[in-house]
Amino acid sequence: MPKLEFWYDFASTYSYLSAMRIEALAAAAGVEIAYRPFLLGPIFKAQGLDTSPFVLNPVKGEYMARDIARIATNRGLAFHVPEPFPAHSLLAARIGMIAEEEGWIGAFTRAVFDAEFAGRANIAAPETIAQAVAGLGHDPAQVLARAGSDAVKSALRSRSEAAAGKGIFGAPTFISEDGELFWGDDRLEQALAWTGRIDNRPG
Amino acid sequence: MPKLEFWYDFASTYSYLSAMRIEALAAAAGVEIAYRPFLLGPIFKAQGLDTSPFVLNPVKGEYMARDIARIATNRGLAFHVPEPFPAHSLLAARIGMIAEEEGWIGAFTRAVFDAEFAGRANIAAPETIAQAVAGLGHDPAQVLARAGSDAVKSALRSRSEAAAGKGIFGAPTFISEDGELFWGDDRLEQALAWTGRIDNRPG
Repeated sequence: MPKLEFWYDFASTYSYLSAMRIEALAAAAGVEIAYRPFLLGPIFKAQGLDTSPFVLNPVKGEYMARDIARIATNRGLAFHVPEPFPAHSLLAARIGMIAEEEGWIGAFTRAVFDAEFAGRANIAAPETIAQAVAGLGHDPAQVLARAGSDAVKSALRSRSEAAAGKGIFGAPTFISEDGELFWGDDRLEQALAWTGRIDNRPG
Repeated sequence: MPKLEFWYDFASTYSYLSAMRIEALAAAAGVEIAYRPFLLGPIFKAQGLDTSPFVLNPVKGEYMARDIARIATNRGLAFHVPEPFPAHSLLAARIGMIAEEEGWIGAFTRAVFDAEFAGRANIAAPETIAQAVAGLGHDPAQVLARAGSDAVKSALRSRSEAAAGKGIFGAPTFISEDGELFWGDDRLEQALAWTGRIDNRPG
């Protein structure tokens, strides 16, 4: 089955929209999703921005909240803008690296996004993440301890560097096996169609 | 018939995508389009940017060119990135103000965008604009002379100030009669659906 990489930051509002629908759309398109949590912060820093563009440009930030509220309503999803915004996503991303390795990244991603954008939980709080981990049948104490290890820290740093190397400048970003890059929840259908076609090419 | 305002800058690549399809989609939705040419430059300046975000962030600019090329191909449209980018759209916008007043703005808008993004013409050159004007059966010498009048200059300045006042931060932007703002070619269908619904509300 052809694979599509889904690159996202746990603080990203538009990534929430994609995470909550990507599995259903991917199944319909015959595509497998490879979850790639990363940190947007270093990428924004390299662009000379010290926080989210939605904070630096409040008019755009206000529009984003309205845009997502409209889309979320159409999709039957709850949505609120976290406070503070953007949420501090480092802990979630580190645990995402573990979940990816152990094969429970899809469910973990949905649990964290749901807690953050629907449940109004603070994803920087270890309790929030522990609850998500426990809800998936894993041992929160063990997983949280591992999140502080040098190996996990370093894996996440490499992941975020890889994102920059691939030309990623925002989230969500979808990358096909032949290196085609699609940015934004509104390009998810296009990314899946592109990826599905790879499989149908003559051998 | 409910109206939808279509705010655009003649240098805007995503506005090109919208201009070439908006009439067909609007007719299908039972919506009338009110063309609102304006200048993005002053809005970017107010954000602290001295040119297009696609120039300031070359990685994003490169992505934009690829994103539009993919979409244009799907829609059977030609597309190239003008040189220099962004094009200098002041003259086209001033004549847009005249065309809007005289009722030939839709056709003029398509002619200019087609010349710029398909025909590789420089829209800052009076010859390019004169050709578009003549192609629509108007007298280029007369129209170009009027474009230099204080009345037209001032009307365009007011228009661009009005854009900022409405919370516009990019182009294309669509605004419904009840003040709902949609940004980007990828929100055109949503804007038309929203606007069409206004007409169906109980009186």
